Amino acid sequence: MMSNQQKTQFTLTELVSGLDVSIVGNADCLIHGVAAIQKAEPGQIAFLMNPLYKKHLATTNASAVILTKEDSSACPTNAIVCRDPYYIYAKIAANFAHKPAVNLGVHPSAVIGDECDIDPSASIGAQCVIGNGVKIGQNVIVGSHCSIGDFSEIDEGTVLHANVTLYPRVKVGKRVSISSGTVVGSDGFGIAKHDGVWHKVPQLGSVIIQDDVEIGANCAIDRGAIEDTIIGKGSKLDNLIQVGHNARIGEHVAIAGCVGIAGSATIGNNCLIGGGAGVGGHISIADNTMITGFTAVTKSIREAGVYSSGVGGVVTNLEWRKNSARLHRLEQLSQRIKTLEFVVRELIESKET
Amino acid sequence: MMSNQQKTQFTLTELVSGLDVSIVGNADCLIHGVAAIQKAEPGQIAFLMNPLYKKHLATTNASAVILTKEDSSACPTNAIVCRDPYYIYAKIAANFAHKPAVNLGVHPSAVIGDECDIDPSASIGAQCVIGNGVKIGQNVIVGSHCSIGDFSEIDEGTVLHANVTLYPRVKVGKRVSISSGTVVGSDGFGIAKHDGVWHKVPQLGSVIIQDDVEIGANCAIDRGAIEDTIIGKGSKLDNLIQVGHNARIGEHVAIAGCVGIAGSATIGNNCLIGGGAGVGGHISIADNTMITGFTAVTKSIREAGVYSSGVGGVVTNLEWRKNSARLHRLEQLSQRIKTLEFVVRELIESKET
Amino acid sequence: MMSNQQKTQFTLTELVSGLDVSIVGNADCLIHGVAAIQKAEPGQIAFLMNPLYKKHLATTNASAVILTKEDSSACPTNAIVCRDPYYIYAKIAANFAHKPAVNLGVHPSAVIGDECDIDPSASIGAQCVIGNGVKIGQNVIVGSHCSIGDFSEIDEGTVLHANVTLYPRVKVGKRVSISSGTVVGSDGFGIAKHDGVWHKVPQLGSVIIQDDVEIGANCAIDRGAIEDTIIGKGSKLDNLIQVGHNARIGEHVAIAGCVGIAGSATIGNNCLIGGGAGVGGHISIADNTMITGFTAVTKSIREAGVYSSGVGGVVTNLEWRKNSARLHRLEQLSQRIKTLEFVVRELIESKET
Repeated sequence: MMSNQQKTQFTLTELVSGLDVSIVGNADCLIHGVAAIQKAEPGQIAFLMNPLYKKHLATTNASAVILTKEDSSACPTNAIVCRDPYYIYAKIAANFAHKPAVNLGVHPSAVIGDECDIDPSASIGAQCVIGNGVKIGQNVIVGSHCSIGDFSEIDEGTVLHANVTLYPRVKVGKRVSISSGTVVGSDGFGIAKHDGVWHKVPQLGSVIIQDDVEIGANCAIDRGAIEDTIIGKGSKLDNLIQVGHNARIGEHVAIAGCVGIAGSATIGNNCLIGGGAGVGGHISIADNTMITGFTAVTKSIREAGVYSSGVGGVVTNLEWRKNSARLHRLEQLSQRIKTLEFVVRELIESKET
Repeated sequence: MMSNQQKTQFTLTELVSGLDVSIVGNADCLIHGVAAIQKAEPGQIAFLMNPLYKKHLATTNASAVILTKEDSSACPTNAIVCRDPYYIYAKIAANFAHKPAVNLGVHPSAVIGDECDIDPSASIGAQCVIGNGVKIGQNVIVGSHCSIGDFSEIDEGTVLHANVTLYPRVKVGKRVSISSGTVVGSDGFGIAKHDGVWHKVPQLGSVIIQDDVEIGANCAIDRGAIEDTIIGKGSKLDNLIQVGHNARIGEHVAIAGCVGIAGSATIGNNCLIGGGAGVGGHISIADNTMITGFTAVTKSIREAGVYSSGVGGVVTNLEWRKNSARLHRLEQLSQRIKTLEFVVRELIESKET
Repeated sequence: MMSNQQKTQFTLTELVSGLDVSIVGNADCLIHGVAAIQKAEPGQIAFLMNPLYKKHLATTNASAVILTKEDSSACPTNAIVCRDPYYIYAKIAANFAHKPAVNLGVHPSAVIGDECDIDPSASIGAQCVIGNGVKIGQNVIVGSHCSIGDFSEIDEGTVLHANVTLYPRVKVGKRVSISSGTVVGSDGFGIAKHDGVWHKVPQLGSVIIQDDVEIGANCAIDRGAIEDTIIGKGSKLDNLIQVGHNARIGEHVAIAGCVGIAGSATIGNNCLIGGGAGVGGHISIADNTMITGFTAVTKSIREAGVYSSGVGGVVTNLEWRKNSARLHRLEQLSQRIKTLEFVVRELIESKET
């Protein structure tokens, strides 16, 4: 049924309820949506965080702007004044998010295994396949087409979007979100070569996803070889990310899209990993480290800081071809300097004599 | 039922119907398949485009060859003479493509939401789950196991292969093709750190896929944060591509496999992006730009051209280790040159005095 | 039903049955699991391969250790002595692997096409969709939510995990394993530009996956344009790997995660390709070649060896910025050397005259 009539407009007072902000202007002003500050129309709320957008403040048509105290004096309209406008925006914008109709209980087309423990407040979507001995907690939402392997556990408030695959014995914490296409708990890449042939090494561990983790679409999180692969509390992963077996990702780590974390890597707490980066096997990265996008982390990082690899920047293809030539020409330049040093020494000596 | 008996051979006249070509030789020659020019057998048609393959023309066993006027004089068999042999090949080869049996209407195992508008000429495959308020146009084919979110719209002639996931409110244009495993409209990677903890920033926009777009397998196209993520008309994406929230990909862009386009990036019309490349967040790329494979685009490109990053070429691991050493030795070489310049100046001055 | 009571402990004699090893100590010792040598507890078996872990041997609490003859003298507990401990570990650990309950036959929720030939010993999971004319051999296991296209063939002993998509006419050999989310046989990226617009080039070949291949999660293996894409016998692919159309991967190749193999690339036998690497289109790589992680293979490799690209190693972002500057400063250094050479030559000549 489509009957979940969602409230579509709110007063500023309603929007900031529970948030540590102050309203300057008309607290009863009605807001029906969000917009970028330079594009907002009456009835919309915008936020100002990036100094580059400050120039749009004077002329914004937004009915309200979320901004810092510092910027508030220049605000031509109602203001939500706060310490961290992007965070406050996130909280306010949640009121305008599309809330899908969720049917409590198990959809009749779902296939449920034996001896499952599914909380009555949970929602199991159409065409799901739930294995044996699975535990699903309060208010969990499992989207359509999810496969949940035997003995997996999903704790309260977690959302699996459509088409997520959990292998057997995976443990997912509270308030986790996993987007479509993501696979959790497939076998790690364990192979042993013997007499010229690769043999599979059984992957006996599992995956533990701690509370408040978010994982994007089409990721692959492998189960551990002996112990478990772990994704720490509050960490956020974008799309198309691989996490190899036995990897341990710390708490409150953010990993952008297309990153590969190889097996047995350890990422400390509060790390940031940019898009397209890779972390090699058995590597450790210290807490609070930032890895810039496209970086190949080929050795452990012991100290917090910002790290990169390669030679920076995109250039014309012509320049790029030269870069390579330059590197290799160095040998020759080095030789020429050596010759010069020799000749100059000769000159000086001949002069002195 | 398997009754769609597909025609399996064609005369040259039938094959070129509607194409701007001329036939030299026997227009009634029967063709039952395509092959590479050097491997073709009688009854097959080949094409010649790449000059490297010209040497195979004289000895080909193909019953017909698609080629330019320039090459036609050397053709030992029937010729389809045209301006653009690869394009003409594409059109002719389509006759030999496997056309799957498509059952009109909704498969009985599919689960359809409320208030959907599904054209009777559309085909909804087995085990699909269609949300509420979904619109599906004429001749649309939705493969098995697709999930279509609430209020999404799919325009006429579009094909979703098996196991495609559309989140709610995604708009897909006419004649679009999306391959298996691809996820469209999952939440963008919007997170705000507050008091040491990441908070989700609601992703209120959606995704618009314009007409004639093709998207390969296992891609992830995120919905926008405030406005929509857009993939422009006629653009073609290969497999395992990420398109971040708010990205705008122009028209007739081709993107090879394993590319990551970060959030809020803007790619101009007619761009080519090679495999494994990455485009950073908030970057703009001018129309008609070519990015070579494996390039990290770390700043905006204002002018059309061919661009690359890093230092070119694969080398032995030994050489690669030297490259790094060379770069760092530069500091020392620079110092030695400075010393030489000083000494030589001294020599000259002492000579002059 | 959950009745498949799995044996949970074994004597050493049982564990090594059929393996070329010797037991030193108590062959009747009972083992109920595996562990890392430094963490093992009584009742567990560990292995010793990496010399770095040798220091843990003397103090291990494992009830048995798998090790080489060389290390066996220092073993404080029961020993499984063998030539290749990691391989023997792989074989022994298989006894402790979770064996999911498999129901023979076709799950009632699966949708099966016409004229399929499904061996009665095969298992077709819940919610599968099997096309027309599909052949499935002895003891094949097809997980839940798999889509198998028309006329595909899966040979005996193969396992498709949940949610694998095979397009039509794909051939999968014996004892193959394909993990969840992987798509095999989607159209290759064949496009021809004509009058400013991309046209699809039909992809008429298919995919052949030979015996004993393993493919990880969320990979995309494209069908060939004219001939078939082939993955050779015994090759092992990790997660999130793209294999482009017409690619031919040799036998016993191992490819780590996040690798892209572009169209028409040929990888020789016994190659190793590290994580995050990429192989360009139409490139050949010789047998027994190793490509290190993150390498862009931009030209063919004719000779076995270890290959890499770029400039090695992760460095601080500051250093990375300098690297780029250094490369470009080379032009200027080169000019200064040239000037010095000229001046010194002048000095010498003036001296000689």
